Amino acid sequence: MTDLREFAAFAERLADVGRRSALHWREQALETRDKRADGAFDPVTRADRETEAAMRAYIERHYPDHGINGEEMGAVAGSSPYGWSLDPIDGTRSFLCNLPSWSILVALLEQEQPVLGVIDIPMLGERLIGWASHCWRQKGEQRAIAKASGCRTLEQARISTTDPYLFSDQERNAFDRVRRAALLTRFGHDGFAYARLATGDIDLVLESGLEPHDRNALIPVVRAAGGAVSNWRGEHDFADGCLVAAASGELLRATVKLLQEA
Amino acid sequence: MTDLREFAAFAERLADVGRRSALHWREQALETRDKRADGAFDPVTRADRETEAAMRAYIERHYPDHGINGEEMGAVAGSSPYGWSLDPIDGTRSFLCNLPSWSILVALLEQEQPVLGVIDIPMLGERLIGWASHCWRQKGEQRAIAKASGCRTLEQARISTTDPYLFSDQERNAFDRVRRAALLTRFGHDGFAYARLATGDIDLVLESGLEPHDRNALIPVVRAAGGAVSNWRGEHDFADGCLVAAASGELLRATVKLLQEA
Repeated sequence: MTDLREFAAFAERLADVGRRSALHWREQALETRDKRADGAFDPVTRADRETEAAMRAYIERHYPDHGINGEEMGAVAGSSPYGWSLDPIDGTRSFLCNLPSWSILVALLEQEQPVLGVIDIPMLGERLIGWASHCWRQKGEQRAIAKASGCRTLEQARISTTDPYLFSDQERNAFDRVRRAALLTRFGHDGFAYARLATGDIDLVLESGLEPHDRNALIPVVRAAGGAVSNWRGEHDFADGCLVAAASGELLRATVKLLQEA
Repeated sequence: MTDLREFAAFAERLADVGRRSALHWREQALETRDKRADGAFDPVTRADRETEAAMRAYIERHYPDHGINGEEMGAVAGSSPYGWSLDPIDGTRSFLCNLPSWSILVALLEQEQPVLGVIDIPMLGERLIGWASHCWRQKGEQRAIAKASGCRTLEQARISTTDPYLFSDQERNAFDRVRRAALLTRFGHDGFAYARLATGDIDLVLESGLEPHDRNALIPVVRAAGGAVSNWRGEHDFADGCLVAAASGELLRATVKLLQEA
């Protein structure tokens, strides 16, 4: 059996490849913007595709038998039980607004289940890596164990979602019950919010509409940091795209209860 | 008549004082958090007060005759026509969640009107300085002219507001009309959103409930970058706390028209 540590080291090098590419295309985008008067530009498609292509090539060179599933370029099956899930630029709207919360998401799948995740935040020079019960945060040259806050009650919880207008009416009603019970709410951080949950800075994240490439990296990171993840019914099937990530099992259960009562 | 350039240089040193203090208290806060199990902490009050105290002392040492009005410690009148408006930590909820969008806001007032602003974003090592038609962005050691995008139409506009739940029902309806007409919407960035407007990365910011210390620094920065600012009725009185900042006068007028029709 392959040691996941080997894959963790590889996943970090893979995130390095993604970070270099994304930052390069971001610079191109900013230069393009400066040459245009109307403020609009469409560099994100190119940055997304080029970054995914670079990451896929890197995987194919090192693990030619692994499957790959990326946001931009679809799925290629492999002969190995292992495969990679890639979101080259998660938070493209933040990328378009030069906000620091976009990230590069990498997950290792084993028999289709995410077992290892990397959330890389290039503009902050920061990265979360998680698998099994190992989670750490790399910031520049510094590496430290990452740990969820352990927050147990909604009234103490700092909660986050990306965009309340992405919810269906029913989802928004359910979210609203949780929001009203919580200490404070932040918006707009996509995958970065889960990195902050893993470092103990946010206690609860609720989202809907998550595709596999959006969620695969987040789940192992949050769990490895001591957090808990389920769908909005408390189950571990994420096919409907709804996800709750919490700093403790107790907080997760309290949240699911409120969501179900809505 | 005093040259505003002298005040601009002073305002930057004042922001340095604020940045050092805020980052110091943020480190204290993160250390406190790491020693607690429940995830809750209340460091922001202390960081806010200590930072404002340091900034006030710095002003009093250099301009003892200037007035000072700060978020935390109230107003002191001066004998000079000049005064300072301070928000030592704008975006305290982001500060509490270790998100990079909190900022330090400094404004110089002349006869109670904001004439010069600094938006300092410590976690990004970035700063906007604006007065009259001079606006620049400092990032690390690099300084460059900052310019709004010039975007003229809502359909091309990247818009931002901090929290849609802060709006009254009527305000939310009005905001919603603008949101539906726009290219994309981002949430959660407080004063930082106006810095991104000044660098051409966001095209429109709508907010309500802004206190003088929230808005005084933003208005000169946006205008100096070529943007336009008014209240939600297109006027230049901000006493009701409602503000629209746009990348062009045309975009501002189109937005005000939609808000008024709501």
